Amino acid sequence: MAYFNNIDKIKYEGSESTNPYAFKFYNPEETINGQTMEEYLRFGVAYWHTFTEDLSDPFGVGTAQRTWDRYEGMDLAKARVEAAFEFFEKLNVPYFCFHDVDIAPEGNSLRESNENLDTIVRMIKDYMKDSKTKLLWNTVNNFTHPRFVHGAASSSEADVFAYAAAKVKKGLEVGKELGSENYVFWGGREGYETLLNTDMKLELDNLGRFYHMAVNYAKEIGFDAQFLIEPKPKEPTTHQYDFDVASGYAFLQKYDLQDHFKFNIEANHATLAGHTFEHELHYARINNVLGSVDANQGHPLLGWDTDEFPTDLYSTTLAMYEIIKNGGLGRGGLNFDAKVRRGSFKPEDLFHAHIAGMDSFAVGLKVAQRLLEDGVLENIVEDRYSSYKEGIGKDIVNGTTNFHKLEQHALGLEGISQPSGRLENIKAIINQYLLKTFAGEK
Amino acid sequence: MAYFNNIDKIKYEGSESTNPYAFKFYNPEETINGQTMEEYLRFGVAYWHTFTEDLSDPFGVGTAQRTWDRYEGMDLAKARVEAAFEFFEKLNVPYFCFHDVDIAPEGNSLRESNENLDTIVRMIKDYMKDSKTKLLWNTVNNFTHPRFVHGAASSSEADVFAYAAAKVKKGLEVGKELGSENYVFWGGREGYETLLNTDMKLELDNLGRFYHMAVNYAKEIGFDAQFLIEPKPKEPTTHQYDFDVASGYAFLQKYDLQDHFKFNIEANHATLAGHTFEHELHYARINNVLGSVDANQGHPLLGWDTDEFPTDLYSTTLAMYEIIKNGGLGRGGLNFDAKVRRGSFKPEDLFHAHIAGMDSFAVGLKVAQRLLEDGVLENIVEDRYSSYKEGIGKDIVNGTTNFHKLEQHALGLEGISQPSGRLENIKAIINQYLLKTFAGEK
Amino acid sequence: MAYFNNIDKIKYEGSESTNPYAFKFYNPEETINGQTMEEYLRFGVAYWHTFTEDLSDPFGVGTAQRTWDRYEGMDLAKARVEAAFEFFEKLNVPYFCFHDVDIAPEGNSLRESNENLDTIVRMIKDYMKDSKTKLLWNTVNNFTHPRFVHGAASSSEADVFAYAAAKVKKGLEVGKELGSENYVFWGGREGYETLLNTDMKLELDNLGRFYHMAVNYAKEIGFDAQFLIEPKPKEPTTHQYDFDVASGYAFLQKYDLQDHFKFNIEANHATLAGHTFEHELHYARINNVLGSVDANQGHPLLGWDTDEFPTDLYSTTLAMYEIIKNGGLGRGGLNFDAKVRRGSFKPEDLFHAHIAGMDSFAVGLKVAQRLLEDGVLENIVEDRYSSYKEGIGKDIVNGTTNFHKLEQHALGLEGISQPSGRLENIKAIINQYLLKTFAGEK
Amino acid sequence: MAYFNNIDKIKYEGSESTNPYAFKFYNPEETINGQTMEEYLRFGVAYWHTFTEDLSDPFGVGTAQRTWDRYEGMDLAKARVEAAFEFFEKLNVPYFCFHDVDIAPEGNSLRESNENLDTIVRMIKDYMKDSKTKLLWNTVNNFTHPRFVHGAASSSEADVFAYAAAKVKKGLEVGKELGSENYVFWGGREGYETLLNTDMKLELDNLGRFYHMAVNYAKEIGFDAQFLIEPKPKEPTTHQYDFDVASGYAFLQKYDLQDHFKFNIEANHATLAGHTFEHELHYARINNVLGSVDANQGHPLLGWDTDEFPTDLYSTTLAMYEIIKNGGLGRGGLNFDAKVRRGSFKPEDLFHAHIAGMDSFAVGLKVAQRLLEDGVLENIVEDRYSSYKEGIGKDIVNGTTNFHKLEQHALGLEGISQPSGRLENIKAIINQYLLKTFAGEK
Repeated sequence: MAYFNNIDKIKYEGSESTNPYAFKFYNPEETINGQTMEEYLRFGVAYWHTFTEDLSDPFGVGTAQRTWDRYEGMDLAKARVEAAFEFFEKLNVPYFCFHDVDIAPEGNSLRESNENLDTIVRMIKDYMKDSKTKLLWNTVNNFTHPRFVHGAASSSEADVFAYAAAKVKKGLEVGKELGSENYVFWGGREGYETLLNTDMKLELDNLGRFYHMAVNYAKEIGFDAQFLIEPKPKEPTTHQYDFDVASGYAFLQKYDLQDHFKFNIEANHATLAGHTFEHELHYARINNVLGSVDANQGHPLLGWDTDEFPTDLYSTTLAMYEIIKNGGLGRGGLNFDAKVRRGSFKPEDLFHAHIAGMDSFAVGLKVAQRLLEDGVLENIVEDRYSSYKEGIGKDIVNGTTNFHKLEQHALGLEGISQPSGRLENIKAIINQYLLKTFAGEK
Repeated sequence: MAYFNNIDKIKYEGSESTNPYAFKFYNPEETINGQTMEEYLRFGVAYWHTFTEDLSDPFGVGTAQRTWDRYEGMDLAKARVEAAFEFFEKLNVPYFCFHDVDIAPEGNSLRESNENLDTIVRMIKDYMKDSKTKLLWNTVNNFTHPRFVHGAASSSEADVFAYAAAKVKKGLEVGKELGSENYVFWGGREGYETLLNTDMKLELDNLGRFYHMAVNYAKEIGFDAQFLIEPKPKEPTTHQYDFDVASGYAFLQKYDLQDHFKFNIEANHATLAGHTFEHELHYARINNVLGSVDANQGHPLLGWDTDEFPTDLYSTTLAMYEIIKNGGLGRGGLNFDAKVRRGSFKPEDLFHAHIAGMDSFAVGLKVAQRLLEDGVLENIVEDRYSSYKEGIGKDIVNGTTNFHKLEQHALGLEGISQPSGRLENIKAIINQYLLKTFAGEK
Repeated sequence: MAYFNNIDKIKYEGSESTNPYAFKFYNPEETINGQTMEEYLRFGVAYWHTFTEDLSDPFGVGTAQRTWDRYEGMDLAKARVEAAFEFFEKLNVPYFCFHDVDIAPEGNSLRESNENLDTIVRMIKDYMKDSKTKLLWNTVNNFTHPRFVHGAASSSEADVFAYAAAKVKKGLEVGKELGSENYVFWGGREGYETLLNTDMKLELDNLGRFYHMAVNYAKEIGFDAQFLIEPKPKEPTTHQYDFDVASGYAFLQKYDLQDHFKFNIEANHATLAGHTFEHELHYARINNVLGSVDANQGHPLLGWDTDEFPTDLYSTTLAMYEIIKNGGLGRGGLNFDAKVRRGSFKPEDLFHAHIAGMDSFAVGLKVAQRLLEDGVLENIVEDRYSSYKEGIGKDIVNGTTNFHKLEQHALGLEGISQPSGRLENIKAIINQYLLKTFAGEK
Repeated sequence: MAYFNNIDKIKYEGSESTNPYAFKFYNPEETINGQTMEEYLRFGVAYWHTFTEDLSDPFGVGTAQRTWDRYEGMDLAKARVEAAFEFFEKLNVPYFCFHDVDIAPEGNSLRESNENLDTIVRMIKDYMKDSKTKLLWNTVNNFTHPRFVHGAASSSEADVFAYAAAKVKKGLEVGKELGSENYVFWGGREGYETLLNTDMKLELDNLGRFYHMAVNYAKEIGFDAQFLIEPKPKEPTTHQYDFDVASGYAFLQKYDLQDHFKFNIEANHATLAGHTFEHELHYARINNVLGSVDANQGHPLLGWDTDEFPTDLYSTTLAMYEIIKNGGLGRGGLNFDAKVRRGSFKPEDLFHAHIAGMDSFAVGLKVAQRLLEDGVLENIVEDRYSSYKEGIGKDIVNGTTNFHKLEQHALGLEGISQPSGRLENIKAIINQYLLKTFAGEK
């Protein structure tokens, strides 16, 4: 316990502590709808943002003050593992996530990189024995190194495809070794800088082949994690193939992969693609491909991935609403793919930020649960579509009508009376629920 | 010939006329790659923008000065037909497109609306006998009337679904009657204002059912037009289901409609969805669903559908590049879904605008053809992906490898040398082709 | 009382009524910081959105169901006045705002338009005698009519400039007659469609001349209203001259108008210009030009002016924070320049929407006031800039240093230690204040 | 001549060489309108993008292959100087630009940094003796180092303000030493991450004080460079104070700095602020504050600063149009603040990219010059505003009218007839000029 000396285990309502750092709304033991908050929310810490990130930006070098930065190379990697498990315990968080290069430095060869990985994986496995914190998902970073400049599984260079495959092979093995519940594919370089030099058909076909090989290898080694694709529309590339859930879903269907993959949906990626976070969750939910969540938020006026910690209670409420309706996230969870701002460079900001995010989702969970219990939106929807429960509406839903019958029906109509959509009133009700849930009001 | 008295048939290089209005680059008779420009480009005039549009905007009433506006009701509808065919002849354009309500006013009942339609369709059919101008596509407007406030085929009200179906049924009959080569579905209200009151699953299922019924009815009446979905991400709704080609393609696959539909791709809709025009064309092309094009352009700094006439020669060149690579548009064409600016309110602006658009696509066709003849981009792509022609690359493409073999290959690599993507040089070459194609240089 | 028969005066906490429509948070009589909520918030109803708007959009005709729409022409105008004052009383709102054409139809000539105006102004004046509701601001609509197609005070046509001036002259007279507290200039056509045909210098010079003449005329007739410019970046034009507060402030300084104008800041216009609402308020406040507010909100994913009723409690809190720090809005107020959605077409939606907005600002007022009372953000700022209270910092602020001294100081520094910006923690605190203010917690 | 061995001096039309790298349109010796192209365009190479940039992005480490990267520390700095002057000579470019940290590494103290600078400045000065390439502008980097995390001249920490001042003091001395024609201020950290912890008033006041001290110090040492502010709306900060030219102009006027500063306008910064490049140039021109240009372009679908080399001929044409109308850029120039794409990592891409940019501006110059010679747009504007040359229009412009007279004029009008804005036709004409200028047509 050497990296966050001045911070004790985070306090929550009902826990005994003198720690000034405290959850205001999150309580892992509190039961909601038959599950504890901890079980419901399945929070994960993102290794890269919390232990590797230096808070540089395109116009500035890193500002992060991290006690483990006095080490280098494998010593640094080991120090980060120690810091990580100290952090997990103090935050009392059930999950974490990582890319291969977050936990161990790349070596001078693939073989050396793998050896580095093996060393750190063994260390993590040891730490996990004494920790409640499990691996939500792992992945490999096939985007940072210069070799991936023209793509990884969609590279214009076959050697790079092979290299990417070798890294994913290792990633699957690491995932199995550590009992990861999911395995994530984010195609940070799977897209194009310009169409002018790109063979999109070959690249997508190769991507499809790559995923099939990954599925086969996981099966071969008995790694039964849920496979997840993480969409993002652009950045770093000009245009990425997994633009959003819909384009990913088109891809999965075309390449006959829909039984093997779900989606890891990130709030900030959703908004960069022109969708709300809840749209992506909803669309995935009704297509049965909602797998896991990267819990963060973007800045509505900035055009890049800001990966802010989620604090917007509207967003957390509507996200939890979709998640509860999905019957929870199954093997997925809420991974904080979020980084503290460059100006929040102190170690304690890492706690502040996770507390802010966990509290915000705890509020979201409670408000969403209350909305569902009271059937607020459910009843509105039920009423609104009630015409599909009988008569011509029922025939439509049952597939027992056709254009002839529908025309006859339409010709017989004497005006159509419809109710208001009531959006303003609905928004006011959501505000009331937000405030009254925490005012103890009924 | 009473509506554009002061304008004679538009002149083109090689045609004899004293008309001051002239094409500078378009020549319908000029042969490119074995086809005439007219056959290649298959230009269409959009009835709504050219004969019905009044140039109002959200903050201003119409400014358009149109000689036919002295009429009302069915007289106005008839005057527009006369003006339209005069315009088609003077512009010498091979196609036009319309929505039902563009050509005939809605009546007080569906029956009356259909009667109005029948009258005008007969008139158009007569005019078509003496005209070279054919119907590229027709559609019905299921978005302007208040009944569609909550959607059409995705309405929350079953009666509205029926009404929409009756209108499409009539639209298919009209299309057959006039020999339309395509039938378009643009879902202007098929989306949502807010998820908070929306049952997206039911709405999408209903949309799927609606399309199947349309396919069946067209088959029943022997209307063999190509069916086209026109994606648009948002506006008028907050979020539309056919967001872009990829989301439409996901939908077609899920509802088993992919054999019956292609896409009508609009440039301005592409950019509103975060894609370039050429991206949408390319994606559709490689998935074999490129059907037709709404030729216009948006303003890169404005966040709504500006529907400008296409004048950007980069965009027309890259669009024609995709179209030529697609083997042309088949039964589709280049419909000018474009309106003159509110400040361009004179009748002659309609000619100026179409000439600007037709000339721009003529330039695009020639430059794209020249790029293809010289193999400029083809050779770059060929070289760039050459590693997939042999060795491990060939194995990848042939599906004869797996993660074990790929890892072995990767472990044996001693660094990977890759060529530059050369984007800056490629862009300079495109500029050179743009300028030299018209300088008569080789 | 004939237009909203089914709705009684809106209930609020402490008022006795059986009306199901009720404010949940707004209470006009409640005292905050020595003023009543009513005095603090100075809510205004926008005549255009509430009594004239038909809820059409660029792809659909109007859907609004309004009981006064059975009338036409001047009868309609009179019915709207009756409906308006019934609405004001039932909503219990202290202010309203209008454009000339909202209250009276344009006639066939300027003279006739003015006569129509005079008639309705007399009627309004009579109604105001028996009403608590006063005129927050008036303006004239110099953007809807086709004559303003190329601008109004910045028109390319001198006659249009004259016409615009005549309308503003009348507007100033109307404002004086009705005791308006402010007069607003929104330049909906004061900008350009394209720079290619525009003489921006002449247009801006003319705009400056126009404003000086308006100032002079108001002085001449003894109309002492606060003059307000309302910035908006674009829409309907491609680019408007009053892009945002900063560009308006540059203009005022250049044309020596800064003593005569403040700004009417609209939330949705701020975000369209790339600023947060609170940024524009803050910038105006510190430059002493914060005049009044158009209280609405935009949709962060839509690129046009959606003019939604304000319901985002973060936005209302941060707006009220700036307003309280400004010492209130003086003669300005919170005008709901907001329209119900096209799907919210029932008369009762007008009440729902205003209640939603008023409640949201009431919450914002209370939370902001609580933040200020507790010095939450004030203390953070005070600490953060404390280095400017002494030593070299004090010299900088006092203007008693120079580059020589500063360099000497810098050369002597041994590293600079700075505190964290703590953004994540600050956001969590704001969430806590939002929730606890209404939980009765301290 | 050791760094670009395989590349000879770039060939241009009329020059004798066997170099395969060639300008297609730029010819430094060609005379346009009485000046050589070289004099007109005053191209500058940006030291940071060409000699320091490693082509990393937020998701990837650098890919650039640079022969000087075998060196480190001051040796690397010296190698870059050698490479730079080799590059300047081979490209035959008249100017370059740099930040302090581009040319010399920061030391462990300000004193050491200054010594490093002195060493390299002496070396550069020596090289300049034998080179035609002069210094267009220099600046200091007050944004990359962690000390600037909360701002530089607008820092919340007085010590940082002092440090920033010391760096600018040195920058002014370096500029004088090397005969720089301009000195640039880009406020990459002069803005805020969040308003919640920001005292904008104090920060702006301090910024004003800082600029005054800079003006005074330059005067004191006899450095007569033109001072330039470079606006950018956001990135790296959430919101920067010099958002665009208008906000910068408001600032200059408020702080009485307008006689001492002009603007350095960057194309990509303009579009990020919601303006076209030509808008910012035009606005600056008519306010007499157009100083210099950062010649690049952004990607219209990406929301961050892509700093691409300028290849869009529409943009270069309209930019040159404004610049010619400005009477040239005076002491300013066209600095390529542009970087090759991450995929264009070869040394030769640096030449390709500059050639692409220089050729594009050469085309822009010629087309703009031809448009002006033929009075194409000038005549359109002249006609369009002709009503201000006589009668009421002349009175308006001369300031000899008022609202009474204007109302009288308006009351006497019988309809107002206005010409079309003709945008579509104008765009077609620009296309024709673009193509015909290089086809040798008249």
